[in-house]
Amino acid sequence: MTYERFLSRGANAMRESAIRKMGAIGARVPDLISFAAGYPDSGTFPWNAFREIASELLNGHDPNALQYGATRGYRPLVDDIGQVLESHGIRSTFEERLVTTGSQQGLDLVGRLLIDPGDVILVELPTYTGAISAFRNTQAEMIGVPQDADGIDVEALDSTLQSLRAAGRRVKFLYVVPNFQNPSGLLIGLAKRRRLLEWAERRDVLLVEDDPYGELFFPDRATREETRPIKADDTTGRVIYLSSFSKTLAPGFRVAWVVAPAEMIAKFDLAKQAADICAGALDQRVIHQAIHRGVLATQGERLRTHYQHKRQVMEHALAERLGDRMSWTTPRGGFFLWGRLAGGVDAEAVLAHALESKVSFVIGRAFYVDDSGHDTLRLSFSQPSDAELEEGVARLALAVARAR
Amino acid sequence: MTYERFLSRGANAMRESAIRKMGAIGARVPDLISFAAGYPDSGTFPWNAFREIASELLNGHDPNALQYGATRGYRPLVDDIGQVLESHGIRSTFEERLVTTGSQQGLDLVGRLLIDPGDVILVELPTYTGAISAFRNTQAEMIGVPQDADGIDVEALDSTLQSLRAAGRRVKFLYVVPNFQNPSGLLIGLAKRRRLLEWAERRDVLLVEDDPYGELFFPDRATREETRPIKADDTTGRVIYLSSFSKTLAPGFRVAWVVAPAEMIAKFDLAKQAADICAGALDQRVIHQAIHRGVLATQGERLRTHYQHKRQVMEHALAERLGDRMSWTTPRGGFFLWGRLAGGVDAEAVLAHALESKVSFVIGRAFYVDDSGHDTLRLSFSQPSDAELEEGVARLALAVARAR
Repeated sequence: MTYERFLSRGANAMRESAIRKMGAIGARVPDLISFAAGYPDSGTFPWNAFREIASELLNGHDPNALQYGATRGYRPLVDDIGQVLESHGIRSTFEERLVTTGSQQGLDLVGRLLIDPGDVILVELPTYTGAISAFRNTQAEMIGVPQDADGIDVEALDSTLQSLRAAGRRVKFLYVVPNFQNPSGLLIGLAKRRRLLEWAERRDVLLVEDDPYGELFFPDRATREETRPIKADDTTGRVIYLSSFSKTLAPGFRVAWVVAPAEMIAKFDLAKQAADICAGALDQRVIHQAIHRGVLATQGERLRTHYQHKRQVMEHALAERLGDRMSWTTPRGGFFLWGRLAGGVDAEAVLAHALESKVSFVIGRAFYVDDSGHDTLRLSFSQPSDAELEEGVARLALAVARAR
Repeated sequence: MTYERFLSRGANAMRESAIRKMGAIGARVPDLISFAAGYPDSGTFPWNAFREIASELLNGHDPNALQYGATRGYRPLVDDIGQVLESHGIRSTFEERLVTTGSQQGLDLVGRLLIDPGDVILVELPTYTGAISAFRNTQAEMIGVPQDADGIDVEALDSTLQSLRAAGRRVKFLYVVPNFQNPSGLLIGLAKRRRLLEWAERRDVLLVEDDPYGELFFPDRATREETRPIKADDTTGRVIYLSSFSKTLAPGFRVAWVVAPAEMIAKFDLAKQAADICAGALDQRVIHQAIHRGVLATQGERLRTHYQHKRQVMEHALAERLGDRMSWTTPRGGFFLWGRLAGGVDAEAVLAHALESKVSFVIGRAFYVDDSGHDTLRLSFSQPSDAELEEGVARLALAVARAR
């Protein structure tokens, strides 16, 4: 029996994420060093705190700790999120926040609430594959806009919008990752953030601002002030803002959030009710307690130094082994180093050799909605140990040499 | 600023679930006795086992216990699910199973994979509101088919299908809850199950079989054999089967599953990747350990007796106080007693009085896709204590008397 005749158009359009695919390939190669998955380093998770908290939560005194809960989220956590936002300059009311089952769910709900088949979504070139998947599944057409050294090119953005409108297309929003973008690692400058907001107002489009990495700025290259979300200056309700505890606490708890005007959040609530009723009761309570006990605050400081060090190790190794065959901009935060191969070498050819040498990465093309970027690649430095970073780069250098 | 111009057609069609709405109303009424929410009794949760398990899992020895995981699910749990299925007569391979973030996500993914706007989905009259929400959000048209004492009327089902096809409509699947249906409590007879499968084959439609309550048969009225899933006899891949640990272990862990032909599960995997990447890492491991340590097996036996007793308490109280003003069929399992008010009294009028008297329920009409069932109501007996069941029924009797 075959099933094509039963599948929706959306289902027929679905594609496997290049990142998840690399994960599956990686799982089959023993002793592989993975620069592919953008996983946080599980060695940094505050295991003891989580164990104590979970143990207390499961003593049976709170009957709701394992029960269905409000779709909006566990109220004390929704309140905590308000304070986390406040520390990033974003003021919000309870009615403007909703807990999501990971930020991927936030992206999925954005797609479902805002996109009709054929609507146009503007994205950066390159952009996050999880967003590409979510928006493609609602049959958006994604149009890419190139980046400068400080992020998306605002002139190109506006001319793209204008020509789409001239062609009668409906543009719903710009999806943008201003802080240490996955995959490019770029930080959008503060002046450009203001211009983006002003542009969205003037052109009447929404901004969907995705900010999983804002806490992870590297003190040697960036300041907290430089990570100020666009949403912090949004006085008219133009920005839908997404963030997560996955990179600062742990992704195994599927707890993230979205902040948007109350009228929009009411729609997110309806969509989430039908999508999965509510986020995990225990997960949300563990995160709440971790915030309440100061664990989140401690983690921020610790992770900034930790991942900065890893970036330094990878970058040193790259400079030594690949300095003349690959160029990159030093990441100022986050998990990713974005490389461009000299002489237009195809990253896919390098990948084939890399897997033979037992190192993996994600080809840059996976992040381009226009299928460009063949000579680019994303290297995650977040998870491997120092020794693995060095050995992995050595293997990668071999693969690049072979592919040339 | 307003947002209508940005919203998708799907977003504009979204409606609040009557059950979630009742939950929100209930939260504002102090001392309310709720027959509305279909929550399991948190007093039955195996708290000690969960606490021990979580404590061990969070000792840091398994670095993946809080990491991103495979979209398909935590492998040992996916294997466990195979054994759970086996105990219900369903044989399946690893490739035919996928862990979902609660069964609601399974319904949501079914809708997204199978429904294009305007497609017809056949459902029972009444049917589960969570399915109605999920399928409405993908802009299905739902057509209802009446029930007999042993579930959906197969003649009516076939004539409905035939007339829809004659009108050029595309019918994708029948959604059916054979075991102790939410809301009617009905158990579809074994002979009828076979007829449904044969009908689906003959007419080339899919069956979506939702089975959250199968374990919760009441020994005084039903046997395990009578709960045999339709999927157990599906030799050609006609049935998509959903079930969950929410009713047998705890819903706060968002862990459920779907079983379908491998080709369909590959699509579920893609859809889930973009929906939320993966179910919670800790949640899945806790459930796996609970199964591994025999907790699930012990719970089944215990819960059958526990909920059977609650049903008896509610039914006795109803017989005493409302026997002449409401009719019902004794539920043979599950969480729900489905009532029909004598003389066509409107359940919505009763609800207004009930809330004044501090008791709540869900009006039956919420479960009818054709807006019928005005004289019906769903009473959940799963969560209240014995004393609350008795007091709640007394209050309900008062409300019915006032509404007449």
